[in-house]
Amino acid sequence: MPTEREIAIFEAAIKLGALYHQFVGTPVSPDTAPAMEAAIESAVRLQPYVTDVNVRLDRSVMLENPFGYSEISGRMFDVTVKTKVGDATCTARLAYENGYPMMSIQD
Amino acid sequence: MPTEREIAIFEAAIKLGALYHQFVGTPVSPDTAPAMEAAIESAVRLQPYVTDVNVRLDRSVMLENPFGYSEISGRMFDVTVKTKVGDATCTARLAYENGYPMMSIQD
Amino acid sequence: MPTEREIAIFEAAIKLGALYHQFVGTPVSPDTAPAMEAAIESAVRLQPYVTDVNVRLDRSVMLENPFGYSEISGRMFDVTVKTKVGDATCTARLAYENGYPMMSIQD
Amino acid sequence: MPTEREIAIFEAAIKLGALYHQFVGTPVSPDTAPAMEAAIESAVRLQPYVTDVNVRLDRSVMLENPFGYSEISGRMFDVTVKTKVGDATCTARLAYENGYPMMSIQD
Repeated sequence: MPTEREIAIFEAAIKLGALYHQFVGTPVSPDTAPAMEAAIESAVRLQPYVTDVNVRLDRSVMLENPFGYSEISGRMFDVTVKTKVGDATCTARLAYENGYPMMSIQD
Repeated sequence: MPTEREIAIFEAAIKLGALYHQFVGTPVSPDTAPAMEAAIESAVRLQPYVTDVNVRLDRSVMLENPFGYSEISGRMFDVTVKTKVGDATCTARLAYENGYPMMSIQD
Repeated sequence: MPTEREIAIFEAAIKLGALYHQFVGTPVSPDTAPAMEAAIESAVRLQPYVTDVNVRLDRSVMLENPFGYSEISGRMFDVTVKTKVGDATCTARLAYENGYPMMSIQD
Repeated sequence: MPTEREIAIFEAAIKLGALYHQFVGTPVSPDTAPAMEAAIESAVRLQPYVTDVNVRLDRSVMLENPFGYSEISGRMFDVTVKTKVGDATCTARLAYENGYPMMSIQD
């Protein structure tokens, strides 16, 4: 049987993998980024064992295509999600590092 | 060469196909539906030739799974998008009809 | 009422918008590209009014991330889809042009 | 610092969350299910720390819509993924249980 800590880790990772692949490719611009961040956070908060989530899309890499907007990409995400299973917790993060949207256990 | 009307139709349909497959599967509940509708509308508005978009997710079919939320499905969408190319326009709709998320030209 | 030609155009565009936003972000490499192309084609062929579809993912832009793979992006797609509604047909294409995954009516 | 076992669990969960939200909504039928299963497996195998993956889409719940096909849904997935980090491993599963696409640590 997995421990509560292991399940908290497992659940946090599910949320990061899920949101990345759900929202990548969505049209976005600096003006619409707040609405998108709010929607992504709302979706993550509904999921099991989530106690907190913060989604930040990096406006500085929202390069405009010829029609004046961008698409959500791995380069844009800075996400922290916290889970709690029994007495155990996990904080996990998605952030762009060394050319890769890295997901990691923070504590 | 396609006419302006044909291009307006083509562009409206792209938006409906795109948003359906971008957002289907996203966790949602009646409480979070407004944030999701706003985000979807913001994403569609950025795209070429769009003059108006209205997204409504049907709360009445947001059946709760064992963890108390639902996922965006074809059954939930009621979307109207308007495009304009030169002097031509198109209004297109995505709505659930006869067991299918039907996309159609409205005018 | 839209004409058969207009509906053929509308249906072709739905398929392009749909496949783009369904599959963008999927892990891919030159080795796995054939399986992915086959799967995307199989999904498009199931949809209404499609008579033919060809999906090609450009291997030359599958740049490796630090873990040795890439993700499907707008830059990779070269897709042709044909639809038929009554006696009318439409050929539409998705291809990367001038920094944008352009969708267009071909005939 | 997380242990190797914790990272193996974390990585397995990322893959399950990712594939679910990448592919849900894709048109599918019993005839095209093998191509889709192969493509999903190919995508998961590319990702870091994966040693094995098996994807099975349940044909028995591929109910036909009016156009004769279905869409990948949480109800269809039966997926096992194995990861290895250092000397530690994790086997995780996605399967439909009690009305929910449950992801769990198997060992």
